[in-house]
Amino acid sequence: MESKLQFAQALVRQAGSYIRQHMSDDLAIETKSRYDDLVTNLDKDTQNFVVEAIQTAYPDDFLMGEENNLRHPIKDGNVWVIDPIDGTVNFIVQKEDFAIMLAYFEDGVGQFGLIYDVMQDKLYSGGPDLPLMMNDQTLEAFDNRPLTRSLIGSNGSMYAHNVSGISNLINQTLGVRVYGGAGISMAHVLSGRLLAYFSHLYPWDYAAAQIIGSQLGYELLTLDGEQVDYQSRQMVMFIPSAYKQTIQDYMERGK
Amino acid sequence: MESKLQFAQALVRQAGSYIRQHMSDDLAIETKSRYDDLVTNLDKDTQNFVVEAIQTAYPDDFLMGEENNLRHPIKDGNVWVIDPIDGTVNFIVQKEDFAIMLAYFEDGVGQFGLIYDVMQDKLYSGGPDLPLMMNDQTLEAFDNRPLTRSLIGSNGSMYAHNVSGISNLINQTLGVRVYGGAGISMAHVLSGRLLAYFSHLYPWDYAAAQIIGSQLGYELLTLDGEQVDYQSRQMVMFIPSAYKQTIQDYMERGK
Repeated sequence: MESKLQFAQALVRQAGSYIRQHMSDDLAIETKSRYDDLVTNLDKDTQNFVVEAIQTAYPDDFLMGEENNLRHPIKDGNVWVIDPIDGTVNFIVQKEDFAIMLAYFEDGVGQFGLIYDVMQDKLYSGGPDLPLMMNDQTLEAFDNRPLTRSLIGSNGSMYAHNVSGISNLINQTLGVRVYGGAGISMAHVLSGRLLAYFSHLYPWDYAAAQIIGSQLGYELLTLDGEQVDYQSRQMVMFIPSAYKQTIQDYMERGK
Repeated sequence: MESKLQFAQALVRQAGSYIRQHMSDDLAIETKSRYDDLVTNLDKDTQNFVVEAIQTAYPDDFLMGEENNLRHPIKDGNVWVIDPIDGTVNFIVQKEDFAIMLAYFEDGVGQFGLIYDVMQDKLYSGGPDLPLMMNDQTLEAFDNRPLTRSLIGSNGSMYAHNVSGISNLINQTLGVRVYGGAGISMAHVLSGRLLAYFSHLYPWDYAAAQIIGSQLGYELLTLDGEQVDYQSRQMVMFIPSAYKQTIQDYMERGK
């Protein structure tokens, strides 16, 4: 597994380098489900680059990815889950705060995950039996700071509409932060900048963070506290396990 | 004026270096008006450092600053406006996304402003008759992108409560971003990452951005479109002048 992780680390760094080289080119921007759901040629090119490298190195493995309708079921065999540019709106408008994410599963069991903050050149990676790292620094487990000295990341609309009572939780803390990308936001949870993160996500948005986080005391759950399904888009939370009851209590009271 | 700007640029860089050296020390954190209005010993030490340097170099000048109740009126003589650590919550929790801000006025007329993103080492500075720079790059004027390809920065609570109809404006764009510091957010407006920014600010939070922005086609106004008062805390917006009517129309319709 160590060598597959090293392959994946080198691959996302190459993909990031490809994006940095081409991000000042004229981008072809298309809308997907609605006007604010955007994709560029570089999202697709980057996914193709990653997919081809995996297929060449591991021809018997399967793929699930954001673009091009790659939808192999997570529980069947060796499955790579790819989000070539997470935070496409930030990528287009800001040229900052977007991530490449890659996760690897064997028969539904997460082996490792990677979140690469492309512009800050920060690569978060790790898995159950593998080192947990941000570049060459070891990631530390959750530090148990109090809610009143914490910040919460959220999807802006879910916060504004107090979905499942999350605003009541946020009101117990120092406030909300909205960064506009799941990968960047969950990396901020892993690094301790945020206590938790709430959003509406697809499997490729949460797979890597779930695997890395599980070794640091974090859980990726639906807002009801259930396991995610790795199939549909779901409202989810990425939280420290030690705070699960407290978080659920404040949410319940805020509904 | 050029030499006074150079003095100020060197001073905020020195102050930033002082903060970076001491930010891993144990911080003494106190609450001010309420539990989420925080100040540390480093806010006060940094302001003292800046104030002493100004008083030594320019003993006849006056001071307005966030800490220690420095409140010289903006229209009287040569006045320096200081925010030693803007985004104190980010500073305490994240050790990222906070800024030192400094602005200089003569008889109420802004001469230059500086916003220093301490951890990213990005210094925005300029004034009416002075170069507009981010470090050694020239700041470019606003690029007229459409609302539907733009992001808006906001105070989280003002967005959630649709204060003055701002959520209706935000709904015409690609969405909201909440970074938790006025200096950082307004620097993101100046660099084009955000189209506009809405928050509830004191004079030391907006002075520098107003001066720098005015040369790039931005205005710092109350939510009613009036001039700010440089005295009280006010709900304000930092917007491209070219969009003033459009922004006000969407806000009016969203009330």
